[in-house]
Amino acid sequence: MGLNGVIRPGLIQMKVLDLDKTVKHYTDVLGLNEVCRTEDGRVCLKGYDEFDHHSLVLRQADEAGFDYAALKVDSDATLDCLEKKIEAFGYKVDHVLPESNQPGFGRRIGFRLCTGHRLELYADVKQASQHPEILNPNIWTTPPRGMRCQRFDHMLLYGPNISEAERFCVEVLGMFVPEVCNTPDGKRVATWITGSNKPHDLAFVEFDQPGKIHHLAFFLQDWHDVGNAADHMAVNHVKRDVGPTRHAITRGHTIYFWDPSGNRNEVYAGGYTAYPDNPQRVWDVEQLGRGLFYYEGELIPSFLSVFT
Amino acid sequence: MGLNGVIRPGLIQMKVLDLDKTVKHYTDVLGLNEVCRTEDGRVCLKGYDEFDHHSLVLRQADEAGFDYAALKVDSDATLDCLEKKIEAFGYKVDHVLPESNQPGFGRRIGFRLCTGHRLELYADVKQASQHPEILNPNIWTTPPRGMRCQRFDHMLLYGPNISEAERFCVEVLGMFVPEVCNTPDGKRVATWITGSNKPHDLAFVEFDQPGKIHHLAFFLQDWHDVGNAADHMAVNHVKRDVGPTRHAITRGHTIYFWDPSGNRNEVYAGGYTAYPDNPQRVWDVEQLGRGLFYYEGELIPSFLSVFT
Amino acid sequence: MGLNGVIRPGLIQMKVLDLDKTVKHYTDVLGLNEVCRTEDGRVCLKGYDEFDHHSLVLRQADEAGFDYAALKVDSDATLDCLEKKIEAFGYKVDHVLPESNQPGFGRRIGFRLCTGHRLELYADVKQASQHPEILNPNIWTTPPRGMRCQRFDHMLLYGPNISEAERFCVEVLGMFVPEVCNTPDGKRVATWITGSNKPHDLAFVEFDQPGKIHHLAFFLQDWHDVGNAADHMAVNHVKRDVGPTRHAITRGHTIYFWDPSGNRNEVYAGGYTAYPDNPQRVWDVEQLGRGLFYYEGELIPSFLSVFT
Amino acid sequence: MGLNGVIRPGLIQMKVLDLDKTVKHYTDVLGLNEVCRTEDGRVCLKGYDEFDHHSLVLRQADEAGFDYAALKVDSDATLDCLEKKIEAFGYKVDHVLPESNQPGFGRRIGFRLCTGHRLELYADVKQASQHPEILNPNIWTTPPRGMRCQRFDHMLLYGPNISEAERFCVEVLGMFVPEVCNTPDGKRVATWITGSNKPHDLAFVEFDQPGKIHHLAFFLQDWHDVGNAADHMAVNHVKRDVGPTRHAITRGHTIYFWDPSGNRNEVYAGGYTAYPDNPQRVWDVEQLGRGLFYYEGELIPSFLSVFT
Repeated sequence: MGLNGVIRPGLIQMKVLDLDKTVKHYTDVLGLNEVCRTEDGRVCLKGYDEFDHHSLVLRQADEAGFDYAALKVDSDATLDCLEKKIEAFGYKVDHVLPESNQPGFGRRIGFRLCTGHRLELYADVKQASQHPEILNPNIWTTPPRGMRCQRFDHMLLYGPNISEAERFCVEVLGMFVPEVCNTPDGKRVATWITGSNKPHDLAFVEFDQPGKIHHLAFFLQDWHDVGNAADHMAVNHVKRDVGPTRHAITRGHTIYFWDPSGNRNEVYAGGYTAYPDNPQRVWDVEQLGRGLFYYEGELIPSFLSVFT
Repeated sequence: MGLNGVIRPGLIQMKVLDLDKTVKHYTDVLGLNEVCRTEDGRVCLKGYDEFDHHSLVLRQADEAGFDYAALKVDSDATLDCLEKKIEAFGYKVDHVLPESNQPGFGRRIGFRLCTGHRLELYADVKQASQHPEILNPNIWTTPPRGMRCQRFDHMLLYGPNISEAERFCVEVLGMFVPEVCNTPDGKRVATWITGSNKPHDLAFVEFDQPGKIHHLAFFLQDWHDVGNAADHMAVNHVKRDVGPTRHAITRGHTIYFWDPSGNRNEVYAGGYTAYPDNPQRVWDVEQLGRGLFYYEGELIPSFLSVFT
Repeated sequence: MGLNGVIRPGLIQMKVLDLDKTVKHYTDVLGLNEVCRTEDGRVCLKGYDEFDHHSLVLRQADEAGFDYAALKVDSDATLDCLEKKIEAFGYKVDHVLPESNQPGFGRRIGFRLCTGHRLELYADVKQASQHPEILNPNIWTTPPRGMRCQRFDHMLLYGPNISEAERFCVEVLGMFVPEVCNTPDGKRVATWITGSNKPHDLAFVEFDQPGKIHHLAFFLQDWHDVGNAADHMAVNHVKRDVGPTRHAITRGHTIYFWDPSGNRNEVYAGGYTAYPDNPQRVWDVEQLGRGLFYYEGELIPSFLSVFT
Repeated sequence: MGLNGVIRPGLIQMKVLDLDKTVKHYTDVLGLNEVCRTEDGRVCLKGYDEFDHHSLVLRQADEAGFDYAALKVDSDATLDCLEKKIEAFGYKVDHVLPESNQPGFGRRIGFRLCTGHRLELYADVKQASQHPEILNPNIWTTPPRGMRCQRFDHMLLYGPNISEAERFCVEVLGMFVPEVCNTPDGKRVATWITGSNKPHDLAFVEFDQPGKIHHLAFFLQDWHDVGNAADHMAVNHVKRDVGPTRHAITRGHTIYFWDPSGNRNEVYAGGYTAYPDNPQRVWDVEQLGRGLFYYEGELIPSFLSVFT
C-alpha cells in the first residue's frame, strides 16, 4: 500500500463500440466473469481472483477509449484526507454518491489529471458474490477459463504533462516511481508508478492529445500462461499487437492485443518485486524501444498508436 | 511497505556447522553470490537481484540455527519512532553501532520477541558493488546460476506465544496478516505476516521451544524454476524435505530442503498479490496439512521438526 | 515406428469398480472425452489430440485392474507377418473379428505374454468423429480441459519373467530398450521398451503375480501442465501417490495418482528423444529408487503396490 | 526410425564469415560445447545431450550458408542398400573415407538433391568423450548453459523442385511427411519430413535458387526455455528474426534468430508426436503465414529471405 493509503487501481470503465462482441471477448477469451449489468446497459466484470464487486465496466459509445479509473484507498478517513490534498495540489474534486452509477461501490471522489484523465478514489465496495474462498481456501474453485486472467493489474495512460501527473501520484497519492524514461535534456517521456510492490499500478507516456489510454492490463500466473494466452488469441483470431515478449521495464512477460472495439489489452505476468528503497531505474529515450520490447530490441511502431 | 515504514526482511544471520560446505551450498547450488567475509570469519552473501550489501550471513557455530534477522525500514526517523513503539509494547531495545558487525550496514536497533527470536531494524545499508543495473537495465548481467535464487524472501519462525508476536508485528511494525490457522477453540497455531504485497514476509508457528527457525526462503521466478531447483538438488544430492509442491496458504510453489548444516531452506515462487483490504484467510488446524502441502493433502511429519 | 511395423500402444481396457465415478474422473479431471458406450455398458474414451476412434475403455467389474492392451501396427500385412512371428516365439494367437467388442476397430489378433498380460495387435481403426484438425489445423479446437491430457502414452505392467517379455518385444515386435534395471547378478528388475522415439511405449517390472498393471499414463505438454494437473488433483481431492516429481529414467516429469476404482494413473510430460543407436542406460537395482523418483532420491514404498 | 533405417539428421556443416565470433555464439549463447578443431581450421561442436562425436561443424568461408548435412542410418548394410536405391532414383553417389574430413566419423556416402543440397549418410561415428551418463544416469552432469540447447534437431532447406526431394525422402529414405503446403492448383510450396516421431527432421520450401538453407534448429526442453533463450538473445544483443512464437505447423514453440555470420538459427521446443498413420496435415498457401507464425497470424516478410 502506498504511504498515503492508496491500495490499488480497482476499477476502470472503458468505452466500447460493439458491446456484445466486446463482452464476449473479455469473458470467453480473457476469462473474466460478468458480474451484472447496470440499468443504463453497462456491463460489469471481474477476474476470478478478485474479491471486490467488479473491476471492469464496459460502456457502449460512439468511440472506444477510456472513461475513468478509480483507485481503492484504505479508509473513509483517507478519502477525506486525500480530498484536501488533491484540492491543495490544484485539482477540483467532485463527489459521486454511493451506488449512483457503480453497483456495489460506496461514495467516490473524482478529479481530472493534467493529462486529461478522470481518476476517482473510493474506500468502500461490496464483496463480490463469487470471490476466492476464505475458509480453508482452494487456489480456485472453478478452473480458470480461456487466458486465465486473474485480475485487473494496471493501465498505461497517454497525455500531456506527465511530469505533473507523476508528481501528483507521488506527493498526493503517496505512490513511488520505480522506472522513468527521459529525453537527453531530461524531460520525462514515460513514467511507471506504483503504490504497492507491483512494479507498476499505472504508467504515463507523454502525448500531445489528452485523455488517451494505451492499454489496460490483466495479470497472469507466469510466462507459461502468457503462452496459453497467445494460443487462445490465435485460435480465436484475436488481433495481436506485440508479443509474447518481455519488458525490460518492470521485467514482466507480456502480450499486447486488441479488444473488438479497438481498445488495447495487455496480459502481464511476473515483474520484479518493487521496493521504494531500490534505486530508480532510468531509461534513455533512445533505449526506450529495448526497454519496452526487450526481445524485439526496438520500438514497435504501433506502440505509439492509441487506437488501431 | 507496511503502514509504519517497514520495507522487508533484509538480513538474516544463520549458525552453521560446516562453514565451507555450507557456503558452497548457498553459492554453487542456490546460486547466491559471496560478498565478503568478516574479520571473525562469517560469510556474507546475497542474491543476484538484490541491491543492498548482503542479505544472508553464515556463522560457524556448535549448532545450526537462527542467530537473528533484521527488517529494513524507510528512514532513520522511522527507526527512532519504532524504538519508542517497541519499548511501549514492552520489549527492551538495544543498539548496534554502524558496521560494528555487519559490513555495510548502518546503525541497527534490536529486541527479543516473546517467541525467543532476536529481531533488528535498520534504515541504512550500502549498495552492493554488484547489483542489478540501473541505467537502461538488462534483466540480469551474468546468467543466474544453479537454482537461480533471486533474493532472500521470508522466514518461518517457531516459538511460544505467537499471538503476541503477531500483535507486535501489526501494532508496532504496521504489518498485516493475510492468513492464520486456529485450533477449534480459537487459539493461533500459525500466522503469515507481511509488510508488503508479498503474501508473507515472515510467519510464525506456535512451538514450545523458543527461538527456533523452520526455514529461510529464497525467491524463484516461477514453477518452472522450482523444477529446475529440484533438478539441481537431485544432481547435487541435496537433502530434500518436501516438494516440489504447492502451498494452498499463500499459493506459492515450493520445495523444502536442507543445507549441509541442517538448516531448512525453501525455494519459493508465485503466491498471490496480498492486499490489506482482502479478507483474512483462515485455516482450521485439521486442514493445516492441506494448507501447507496442497498436493500431498496432509501434513508431512517432518514439518514440525526444526532440525534434521 | 518400430522395425517390425508396430506404431504405438493405441488401446487399453481397464476394469473399474464404480463406472460412473470413474468415467467422471477420466473426463472431468483428466480431460478425456467420452466417445461412446458399448451394448454391454463399457465406456470408450480418448484424448483430444488422438485421431483414432478411442484409446481407453472402462469396464465395470468386481475388481479393478488390467483387461488388455492393443498395439497398432502399420498394415494388415504386418498383422499377418507378426502372427507368424508370435506363434514362432511360442505364444498362441487368437482372432477377434472386426468391431466385435471394440466399436470402430478392425480385426485384432491376441496372445498372452509370459507376464500374464493379454496383448492385441490391430491395423485398422476408424477415425474418431472429433479429431485434431487436418486442413490448416489449429493447435486445438476446444480448449483442453482439466489436466489437459493429450493422449494415452504408455503403461507399466507387473508380472513374472520380464526378460522373456522384453525379448519378445524386441525380437517379435521390433521394439528397442532404452533403459533397464538389473540386480547385481544381472537379472532384470525392470525394462523400458519403445517402438518409437518416445522413451517408452511400455515397461515391465518383475513381480511374482501375473497380469498386474502398475499404471496407465497420459501425456501432458510440459512441467507446467504437470503443475496444473496437481492443482486439479488437489481441488478435486484426487488421491495422489507420488509427485509432482521427475523420473531420471526417461527424464519425464510425472505424477502418480489413483482413479476412484484404485487403478493407478500417471500424467507424464517431457522425456528425452529415444534413438535406437543411443547406448542403453543401465540402472543398478539399489539406484532404482533414485531412477524412478529423482527428486525424492529413493523408492517410494507404494511403488511396489499395484492396488491401494 | 524411418522404414529404411534412417535415424536422424546427425551432422550439419555450415559456412561462416567470422569463425571466432560465430563459435562464441554457438558455445556461449546457445550453450553447445566445442569438441575439437580440424587441421584445416573447422570447429566441431555438439549439444550436451548428444552421444555422437559432434553434430555441427563451422567452416570459415567467403559467404555464409550450407555446406552439407548428413543423416545417420542404423547399419553399414543399410548404407549399402541405400546407395543402390539412391542411384536407382537417379542421383550419383560418391564416397567419403572414414575420418577423412570429419573427425570420429566412419565412411560416408554423398549425393546432391535436386534442390541443390548435398546430403550424406553414415552409420558409424565415435561416441563423444563427453556424453550423457549411461550407468545410473543423471539428467545432466554440468548444468546446461546459455540457451540450454540440447541437440541439433532439424533444418529447413530452400531450393527448386521440392516435390522430387520429398518423393526421394519417402521412397528412398523411408521417411514420411506429416505436413505439406500447396498452392490452389496443388503444387508443393513447403513440406515437413521426418524419419522419426519428431514432427520434422528436415523441411523444404520451394525456392528458385538452389542449395539455400533457411535455418538450422536446436532443441529446447519447453516454452519456458524458449523464454530463457529470448532472455539470452536480448542480454547478448543477438539479432532476432521472429518470436518467441509458435508454429501451428508441427505445433512447436520457436524463435528464429541469426548467428554473427548471417545464418539463421532456430530454437525449437515441443511439437506433437508424429505418427505415420496420422492423417497428413495440409496447408493452403494463403494460410501458410498463420501455419508458420501462429501468434502473428501472418507471414513475417523476412521468412523468405535466406540471408540478412
